[in-house]
Amino acid sequence: MLILTKEDIKKVFTMKDAIEADKEALKIYSKGESVVPLRVNIDIPKYEGQSLFMPAYAEGIDATGIKIVSIFPKNIEMGKPSTPAQMILLDGKTGEVSAIMDGTYLTQLRTGAVQGAATDILATKDAKIAVLFGTGGQASAQLEAMICVRDLDEVRVFDINESRAEEFVEDMKVKLAKYNTRIIAVKDGNEAIKDADIITTVTTSKRPVFNGSLVKKGAHVNGVGAYTPKMQELDEGLIKKADKIYFDTKKGVLAEAGDFIIPMEKGIISNKDFNGELGQVILGEILGRENDDEITLFKTVGIGVLDLVTAHRIYEKAIKSNVGTNIEI
Amino acid sequence: MLILTKEDIKKVFTMKDAIEADKEALKIYSKGESVVPLRVNIDIPKYEGQSLFMPAYAEGIDATGIKIVSIFPKNIEMGKPSTPAQMILLDGKTGEVSAIMDGTYLTQLRTGAVQGAATDILATKDAKIAVLFGTGGQASAQLEAMICVRDLDEVRVFDINESRAEEFVEDMKVKLAKYNTRIIAVKDGNEAIKDADIITTVTTSKRPVFNGSLVKKGAHVNGVGAYTPKMQELDEGLIKKADKIYFDTKKGVLAEAGDFIIPMEKGIISNKDFNGELGQVILGEILGRENDDEITLFKTVGIGVLDLVTAHRIYEKAIKSNVGTNIEI
Repeated sequence: MLILTKEDIKKVFTMKDAIEADKEALKIYSKGESVVPLRVNIDIPKYEGQSLFMPAYAEGIDATGIKIVSIFPKNIEMGKPSTPAQMILLDGKTGEVSAIMDGTYLTQLRTGAVQGAATDILATKDAKIAVLFGTGGQASAQLEAMICVRDLDEVRVFDINESRAEEFVEDMKVKLAKYNTRIIAVKDGNEAIKDADIITTVTTSKRPVFNGSLVKKGAHVNGVGAYTPKMQELDEGLIKKADKIYFDTKKGVLAEAGDFIIPMEKGIISNKDFNGELGQVILGEILGRENDDEITLFKTVGIGVLDLVTAHRIYEKAIKSNVGTNIEI
Repeated sequence: MLILTKEDIKKVFTMKDAIEADKEALKIYSKGESVVPLRVNIDIPKYEGQSLFMPAYAEGIDATGIKIVSIFPKNIEMGKPSTPAQMILLDGKTGEVSAIMDGTYLTQLRTGAVQGAATDILATKDAKIAVLFGTGGQASAQLEAMICVRDLDEVRVFDINESRAEEFVEDMKVKLAKYNTRIIAVKDGNEAIKDADIITTVTTSKRPVFNGSLVKKGAHVNGVGAYTPKMQELDEGLIKKADKIYFDTKKGVLAEAGDFIIPMEKGIISNKDFNGELGQVILGEILGRENDDEITLFKTVGIGVLDLVTAHRIYEKAIKSNVGTNIEI
């Protein structure tokens, strides 16, 4: 059994690798070639916590796995991470546990990468300006994913907490220096998006984080936050206005994301407004962007097969590079 | 995160410890103080395999865990174990993964121990002769559990494969030498049980493995095998004849064990013939054996809380004794 820490994963696996893995995962999912049983949630009211178990299987790559994520907000008070996570990978040929890896970093990677995949496939080729809303735990991977797929001149970062946005930007300038993209904190999100080619939101907001009517022609928007039916970070007007709407999984988005559940309940949008899944675009089953004027919108809530395929590809690269700690069990 | 191999577990945890852990687990279960979500089964037809995920939570001991067991009969052809298994233990206070341990040995231990708990509680105090049917992967722990709870003179071992029974006995004579109990292989199971005080069956048989009418007054019988609705190792006549019938979990036995499902369907026995769960006996909610003439019967199919409590107690003892390998993840 191979143990892979965040540092181990970083040594062998780039955001580019993760984007390729997520594209592969989306194809597998949309072809119906994965098994993703219902997530098991165990509530732990005694500590206001929850432990989630997310199994998945992909026959084509002989990989089985389960991500274990716990949500314990009070851990912070003890100086511990509030959402500890691990990914357990099994060899789909034998059922043996082959690896256990940092699930927090894996989640950041695959969540950044699924947006990176969408941006790569749907944004205009010469996109130069991007905006990021939100600077929480998923934000750095979201930023890197956008920078990774387009040769951007500038990324503008907005957070309702201004100083947090500034701190985040200072940190990112160092971490993402190799990309040579200007990263700046902005105080006015609506001003920032007016000429943006790519907009990514990764917040838990219950109110739209920018005015959709200001989104320019040809822009591509990614909704990455808003993972419960009450959360709504995307303007209903934008959802109505978008020329093309894609999901990571239609089932997941329509069950979990307030961004779509709320306007559907209001009758503002309906099923016929959705083009389909990004995996179907990659498979060539449906069209993606058709010209540089369309506004494209991608919404993701995540799915176990993203973790599974990404973890599997990380494991393969780690084995090849002899990285990680081997443990007999 | 602490890694515990079979050898590590052996260093710190005895069958006696496991029996105490299982008694605790049965109490927790019967009091309704555990959460045991439905097992998640992923079928892997490509390799005729199956991976099973069994989560559980016990608030009283702040433990969460998931046992991952895969059943790949064809692994044998590759010289690999056919049922690789791991137990992942989480700290119920924080959701952090605290340990990963050998799940195959844990399963043997807790399955032996649940029978040991039943035998300890239900067999006559001066039981001297025991019989074991079956010499598969669970048999050695079953044998040790019986020897562990009573001062036995002799244990007779039967298997339809005679030479396998002999090999098993030779092996057990060495491994269980410290108990000073005579262990012998027998060729006639019905002859062997006539004067037996304790009988344990651990087979996958679809036909009763002995004639129930031959069971003597005062005997205690444990049905440990027969974990599917088609398997039936216990004679229907014995089930009718038994004075007291107890389960590890009533829900599990009546859903999974042919030993009870088949005679219930035939109308030979009904719900009113069942005394209840062993945990209820331990809690003092219902009576156990009342005299030395009663025939008592215990049927177990297992439950995640047995794994959880046993793993939790193993982990505690390993920490205390500084055993196992600590890994940062």
